[in-house]
Amino acid sequence: MIVRKFAIADASFERSPGQDGNVFTGNLIDQRDGGPITIGYGRYGPNEKLEETLAVDDVMIVLEGRLSVSTNTGTVTAGPGEIVYMPEGAPVLIRSHEQGAVTAYVTYPHWQEALD
Amino acid sequence: MIVRKFAIADASFERSPGQDGNVFTGNLIDQRDGGPITIGYGRYGPNEKLEETLAVDDVMIVLEGRLSVSTNTGTVTAGPGEIVYMPEGAPVLIRSHEQGAVTAYVTYPHWQEALD
Repeated sequence: MIVRKFAIADASFERSPGQDGNVFTGNLIDQRDGGPITIGYGRYGPNEKLEETLAVDDVMIVLEGRLSVSTNTGTVTAGPGEIVYMPEGAPVLIRSHEQGAVTAYVTYPHWQEALD
Repeated sequence: MIVRKFAIADASFERSPGQDGNVFTGNLIDQRDGGPITIGYGRYGPNEKLEETLAVDDVMIVLEGRLSVSTNTGTVTAGPGEIVYMPEGAPVLIRSHEQGAVTAYVTYPHWQEALD
């Protein structure tokens, strides 16, 4: 594989599984590319909630807006330029704030394969 | 492991191996944490160069400034909010522009172990 560069305009967003709100994911690199990791952008509408138990190690870098991630041990809140690391197996509730949020994400291994 | 949140102020920057310029890396999660991936922030002074052959899959999310990454097939340039994916084995020349750059990075597996 070669070096590749992505902007948010390159992402094709789809509704993120497990919710019918306005939380969207757009993979840019995933299992179809033959490498070990998935890379994409996430987009959250205002005041959305996404509850899941992480099937993979998931890193979110907040690019715009603000997200809170709650577990049974507490809540962290991240804004632009901040990173949230959610290890495999963690039960999390992700909430966007009133301005919504845009993230870049990296997962190992591929999150879509782990859901199948 | 639990969910963790990081800001750039949490990083302890060290000079990136293989150069004596102003390119610094600050791991936040790595081999010491027991997971599969390394997460950190990178900081590039103005007009720096870093030449390496990637020992791991490396994702850079540009947070500030601008970086160009050249390979034998061409050059990509990324600014704030953009992502550069450098797969394992790629020989790359990373160059910062006049304003320097700040990145978030994720590698699989751990880049420091791959260098040893």
